[in-house]
Amino acid sequence: MNIFEKTKTLIEALPYIKEYYNKTIVIKYGGNAMISDELKNSVMSDIVLLSLVGMNVVLVHGGGPEINEIMDKLGKKATFVKGVRYTDAETMEIVQMVLCGKVNKSLVQLLNKNGGKAIGLCGLDDSMLLAEKLKSDVDLGLVGEITQVNAAPILKVLEQKYIPVIATVAGGKDGEVYNINADTAAAKIAAAIGAEKLILMTDTKGLLSDINDENSLIPQVSVSEVPALKKQGIIKGGMIPKVDCCVEAVRRGVSRAHIIDGRIPHSLLIEMLSDEGIGTMFV
Amino acid sequence: MNIFEKTKTLIEALPYIKEYYNKTIVIKYGGNAMISDELKNSVMSDIVLLSLVGMNVVLVHGGGPEINEIMDKLGKKATFVKGVRYTDAETMEIVQMVLCGKVNKSLVQLLNKNGGKAIGLCGLDDSMLLAEKLKSDVDLGLVGEITQVNAAPILKVLEQKYIPVIATVAGGKDGEVYNINADTAAAKIAAAIGAEKLILMTDTKGLLSDINDENSLIPQVSVSEVPALKKQGIIKGGMIPKVDCCVEAVRRGVSRAHIIDGRIPHSLLIEMLSDEGIGTMFV
Amino acid sequence: MNIFEKTKTLIEALPYIKEYYNKTIVIKYGGNAMISDELKNSVMSDIVLLSLVGMNVVLVHGGGPEINEIMDKLGKKATFVKGVRYTDAETMEIVQMVLCGKVNKSLVQLLNKNGGKAIGLCGLDDSMLLAEKLKSDVDLGLVGEITQVNAAPILKVLEQKYIPVIATVAGGKDGEVYNINADTAAAKIAAAIGAEKLILMTDTKGLLSDINDENSLIPQVSVSEVPALKKQGIIKGGMIPKVDCCVEAVRRGVSRAHIIDGRIPHSLLIEMLSDEGIGTMFV
Amino acid sequence: MNIFEKTKTLIEALPYIKEYYNKTIVIKYGGNAMISDELKNSVMSDIVLLSLVGMNVVLVHGGGPEINEIMDKLGKKATFVKGVRYTDAETMEIVQMVLCGKVNKSLVQLLNKNGGKAIGLCGLDDSMLLAEKLKSDVDLGLVGEITQVNAAPILKVLEQKYIPVIATVAGGKDGEVYNINADTAAAKIAAAIGAEKLILMTDTKGLLSDINDENSLIPQVSVSEVPALKKQGIIKGGMIPKVDCCVEAVRRGVSRAHIIDGRIPHSLLIEMLSDEGIGTMFV
Amino acid sequence: MNIFEKTKTLIEALPYIKEYYNKTIVIKYGGNAMISDELKNSVMSDIVLLSLVGMNVVLVHGGGPEINEIMDKLGKKATFVKGVRYTDAETMEIVQMVLCGKVNKSLVQLLNKNGGKAIGLCGLDDSMLLAEKLKSDVDLGLVGEITQVNAAPILKVLEQKYIPVIATVAGGKDGEVYNINADTAAAKIAAAIGAEKLILMTDTKGLLSDINDENSLIPQVSVSEVPALKKQGIIKGGMIPKVDCCVEAVRRGVSRAHIIDGRIPHSLLIEMLSDEGIGTMFV
Amino acid sequence: MNIFEKTKTLIEALPYIKEYYNKTIVIKYGGNAMISDELKNSVMSDIVLLSLVGMNVVLVHGGGPEINEIMDKLGKKATFVKGVRYTDAETMEIVQMVLCGKVNKSLVQLLNKNGGKAIGLCGLDDSMLLAEKLKSDVDLGLVGEITQVNAAPILKVLEQKYIPVIATVAGGKDGEVYNINADTAAAKIAAAIGAEKLILMTDTKGLLSDINDENSLIPQVSVSEVPALKKQGIIKGGMIPKVDCCVEAVRRGVSRAHIIDGRIPHSLLIEMLSDEGIGTMFV
Repeated sequence: MNIFEKTKTLIEALPYIKEYYNKTIVIKYGGNAMISDELKNSVMSDIVLLSLVGMNVVLVHGGGPEINEIMDKLGKKATFVKGVRYTDAETMEIVQMVLCGKVNKSLVQLLNKNGGKAIGLCGLDDSMLLAEKLKSDVDLGLVGEITQVNAAPILKVLEQKYIPVIATVAGGKDGEVYNINADTAAAKIAAAIGAEKLILMTDTKGLLSDINDENSLIPQVSVSEVPALKKQGIIKGGMIPKVDCCVEAVRRGVSRAHIIDGRIPHSLLIEMLSDEGIGTMFV
Repeated sequence: MNIFEKTKTLIEALPYIKEYYNKTIVIKYGGNAMISDELKNSVMSDIVLLSLVGMNVVLVHGGGPEINEIMDKLGKKATFVKGVRYTDAETMEIVQMVLCGKVNKSLVQLLNKNGGKAIGLCGLDDSMLLAEKLKSDVDLGLVGEITQVNAAPILKVLEQKYIPVIATVAGGKDGEVYNINADTAAAKIAAAIGAEKLILMTDTKGLLSDINDENSLIPQVSVSEVPALKKQGIIKGGMIPKVDCCVEAVRRGVSRAHIIDGRIPHSLLIEMLSDEGIGTMFV
Repeated sequence: MNIFEKTKTLIEALPYIKEYYNKTIVIKYGGNAMISDELKNSVMSDIVLLSLVGMNVVLVHGGGPEINEIMDKLGKKATFVKGVRYTDAETMEIVQMVLCGKVNKSLVQLLNKNGGKAIGLCGLDDSMLLAEKLKSDVDLGLVGEITQVNAAPILKVLEQKYIPVIATVAGGKDGEVYNINADTAAAKIAAAIGAEKLILMTDTKGLLSDINDENSLIPQVSVSEVPALKKQGIIKGGMIPKVDCCVEAVRRGVSRAHIIDGRIPHSLLIEMLSDEGIGTMFV
Repeated sequence: MNIFEKTKTLIEALPYIKEYYNKTIVIKYGGNAMISDELKNSVMSDIVLLSLVGMNVVLVHGGGPEINEIMDKLGKKATFVKGVRYTDAETMEIVQMVLCGKVNKSLVQLLNKNGGKAIGLCGLDDSMLLAEKLKSDVDLGLVGEITQVNAAPILKVLEQKYIPVIATVAGGKDGEVYNINADTAAAKIAAAIGAEKLILMTDTKGLLSDINDENSLIPQVSVSEVPALKKQGIIKGGMIPKVDCCVEAVRRGVSRAHIIDGRIPHSLLIEMLSDEGIGTMFV
Repeated sequence: MNIFEKTKTLIEALPYIKEYYNKTIVIKYGGNAMISDELKNSVMSDIVLLSLVGMNVVLVHGGGPEINEIMDKLGKKATFVKGVRYTDAETMEIVQMVLCGKVNKSLVQLLNKNGGKAIGLCGLDDSMLLAEKLKSDVDLGLVGEITQVNAAPILKVLEQKYIPVIATVAGGKDGEVYNINADTAAAKIAAAIGAEKLILMTDTKGLLSDINDENSLIPQVSVSEVPALKKQGIIKGGMIPKVDCCVEAVRRGVSRAHIIDGRIPHSLLIEMLSDEGIGTMFV
Repeated sequence: MNIFEKTKTLIEALPYIKEYYNKTIVIKYGGNAMISDELKNSVMSDIVLLSLVGMNVVLVHGGGPEINEIMDKLGKKATFVKGVRYTDAETMEIVQMVLCGKVNKSLVQLLNKNGGKAIGLCGLDDSMLLAEKLKSDVDLGLVGEITQVNAAPILKVLEQKYIPVIATVAGGKDGEVYNINADTAAAKIAAAIGAEKLILMTDTKGLLSDINDENSLIPQVSVSEVPALKKQGIIKGGMIPKVDCCVEAVRRGVSRAHIIDGRIPHSLLIEMLSDEGIGTMFV
């Protein structure tokens, strides 16, 4: 690639930089996209770049694989009920340690190494996330659902030009700590802080009209089309909760929500700064 | 106690409230004083009170017993070399998880429950603490010593009227995470942010002229007297590093450093807001 | 009282300090409670404490006894009509001199001596209080009623962390200076600056259900109950105008108004910072 | 005077308005110039004009004649020692009442009536003036000399676009209130707040080379010439302390100090806003 | 004129200075009143004075005679259609150069010379004026009408205590630059920035009830009377667009609009700072 | 170029964006690089990009060709003395009109069209550039040299997030307007506002060690080497004044000064945001 092609790329990014200047972007990052150290480093580098060109980036993360790893070492068996981790008190303690102490601070360190300025928080800091036990027909233990988001600590940290990195454990009025689904938390946080965009980085290409055909990606979906797409079975399985998060965020004022493929290197930059879109956008 | 005695107490606190209004106080809390839940709650309540009457409180904490507990569960044996935890990579990962993810966030939650507004941080956030491997004649693994304190994140968090709660792990230029002695970290932080006071909450009454006589407490020591007291064997054993922290803090501009007995309920309030002093003050 | 009882008192004050943090409290002080130098000093010390623990205190004062004293010296007879001082031009000059020049500045000096930072003002400063001749069936001379409160000078002085001390003389559009009842002025000021609380320090225990029984104190009254209490003769005589001030303040948005016994040492602290209430609260 | 002459006057004022824009001017006003109501009103109107065209005006006042008047009414004889009022405790009480309660607040009211925004203060407010007993070979009672000026309350009041009006009583560390010479106070205040100009409004034309010839006014004097002028007897009698005030102010950084004739209507405007000077300027 | 008459003038200006303190005044200056260098200098001096006594002055200017002069030199014939300059692309280039490069910057230089602080802008700066081709039955070339005013650059420049001087060329969405009538631009700008007053400096005395009688000036007109005055032929010819500008400004919230005689020396000062009005005021 | 190459370019830009975040860059643009409309548009687009990624860009421009064009139209012959335009009064008027009215505002319009926010200024605005007649052995008319730079208007405009575009005419204390060499002005402005970098966009590749070999570019020169390079004849002819500007800027605190080839599309982006350097850098 010669120098003139390089400048073309920079010039192509210009309108996107303008469009998102000083706008807030909530990025949910987790799952398998977080396992490869190289990919993780490249995602953090992308976030620093977005932050430097003027966006207010908020990083919300999960950490399932790391939790499993520590539970294994502790000889504790992970139990999943309908795809949700059954969380007894001991598990919750491990979840909190791993998410807030290991994953969160490692991402912070990686962002700082890449030239960003990051601060690691969780739902307990300044009572940011308030939760209660998730209502469910089967008991899930300390799995919670968010009842209130206190936007203040996130906005204050953004105001001081930090990238807030958020682990999704939440406190309850009962003094318990609850395990919160990170996609849902990201959607609620995006709505609460008035974000322009929510980006869920996943292990899929996005929404496919034919699940077996990677070329059948649906690039854009209106939230009003979602019920029909569910009926047709196009939105199904593990995609349902992710789409629901996008729908909720858009309904609560976030302009656009995206499901993108976190396994593609620099998918964030491609989505945010180039003419190419990537994944599925909900409007 | 009748109402008139109550008001006398409040009136007695007045000059201390005035003296420390808008001054910064660094409190090191940890060890056995942190084990009892009741005591822990009472210390957090005291900190909230000090914060509400106008002091800028910074809480630095350790967490040895909790680390040991998790290591036990993981079937990993804790090794101590000259009283310092030998920290291999696996241990460091546990230390980080426990300090940043468990102890730190629990203290934050407890402060918030008591009506404070706290944010949990560690040395990795905004690269607050920079460390390198501790120089020592025996290898201690990832035990580090602080080479630089970035005061910015602490000052910014204070400015927004939060109580910063700090876990003492630190990043290295080599990308490693280091385990840092919490007393030393508290002393360096106090100096870096221009604190008025450093308070080390310990498991002792303070400096005793006769180690066997609890009534032989030395209430005040000038830092210039310390070498003589060491020679006389009055400062010895585990007291040496604590006194050294106090000396370093005072030498670097902190007006007063205290070693107080964290086992006494509300020892912080007694020290800060009453005519009674408690423990030993270094000036 | 030992040290542990002391700390209990401080801890007991914590929720009150939290509740009134950065809230505005208007205190009316005057009459006989102001005669004893010791009591006066103790009230000023209490006000400084409330100010230091984060409340915005505004002190409104009267000064009847001091006015009488100077009038005596000047050989001028004080005339009272229905309990109100008949105020001819000469009397008004004396009232202004005594309130603004003597009582006001002495209270300022006393607050400063106790470690506060106070500024003495009157209704003429920045045209804070605008008044016209009080409508009445008998002529009362230059007794006025407030037609407008300019909150700006009080808010500006509070913003600069001063305790404003206010003498209740007011200017008229006619260029006259009017003598204003201090209770009424305090109520109007409290409403105008959006105070949380109005406290009238009086020479009584509060509202008694049986005037002859000091133990019959009514601790709390809803403003809607006041007409009935008047009918029953429980609110009568000199209590009527004081209760009316409380009612007006509450009606205009002040959350709570109190009539407390200024003769009890530290009654302000007891009311504001302890579980014990004192006097009667109007809600 | 026709309209074109009017505009010439306004145009003539332009360079002076520019020169003193946002500069601080301390004006001492008192004595006989304050007796005539018409003159007093016209001086206040001038001060409002200077304030509106962008100068930060501080008004320091005395009030000898009013004090005498009240003392007469109280049947108390004024005693003067070497031109200074002997001030026993009772006299001091009267001085304070008259200066802070009567003269000060009347000037405030008059400034407000003329469209200014004024706040009346005295040396007791925020401990602005600290004094001790004046050292003298004859006892003068509670006559004080200033040992310290706290500029904060004056600067804060100016910052909020108020005209501070200052009565010159001062508190002592001994708890006493002292009577302070207003010329001296004005000079010390001007130095403490970094004023550009000090103007003493007096009952004389300024410094005359021949005391019997009103046309012998010396328009400008360098402070270095003062000792010689004293030797020559040109500066003598009541002029000496006034000149000394000017010298002290200039020595402590005030650019220019003026002695002007307060009896001439609008002498302030003539001095500040026209090509004509008036009185004597010390540089 | 003696000194006492001078001070009378200054005193007379006081209420006007008060009234317009920190208020925004848009002044349209142009045409023949701009030809005489002496008159131009005197207008700039007046503007600086108004600015120094606390008004936020915005100067909008035309420059017809200067444009004609340069066109002559370039051998290009000026064509007028119904009193409006036909503006082909070449003419537009000249108009822009002369207005933005010559007239605008000369006025800025003159204001600065007179002690003001001025910044020269045009409708292109920060896209302040957006225009489209003026709809008209005859083609006028690049004569535009304003479709939008971006108040931000004017308000920001005022906020930094500069006098904005504005040349009335405007950009179109089509990339063209349009020639804008300066009276209309001034009216639209006055409305957009919330000005208190619009003053059109013209070559007439104002609105005359009898065009042949200079003494028949109508000092004040309500905008509701304008249609009737047009019908009666009192508002006619070149006066119509000027009156329409005043009407539009008043309709859009500008309190008062004036047509004054720019040929009278210091007509601005007379209008703004004396009891004499001048010209016709629309309310 | 595929999407992965694109992201590589963006990632490559990251460290440069970080390095120049919130730093000030003065860019001199003019001469032949300004003739092509396409090139001009591309330079403006680059400047907007640099501005959006966080740099404070100041654009200083010349306009020789445009001046010549208008002079031709006016039938006025341009005279050059030693490469400098002889500037009589008539020429100066044209220079001012063309630079401030045509070139400056066109660049502003182009920047705004590309999504920037620009304000056009010249040396007369807020007396930004003060000049006197250039000392020279032959008379050059109104060619001036800068004696003082008032940084305030530039800093204020930057503070409000505008791109200041500066035409290099300057006012003299004598009331004249002077024609200033744009390279020199850029260097002096860069020094006065504490710029990090000065970039002269020229019609050359940079400094060549062999003038006939475009591949002999010297990428970096220390200012201490300049005298030797002049002696060797490597810096000669038209390159001398450009190099002197760079040397002066570096001597006065600008970290780096560059001579780059403005004819290469996007040379600014290549220089500022890629690993490739371009032209010659003076350190």
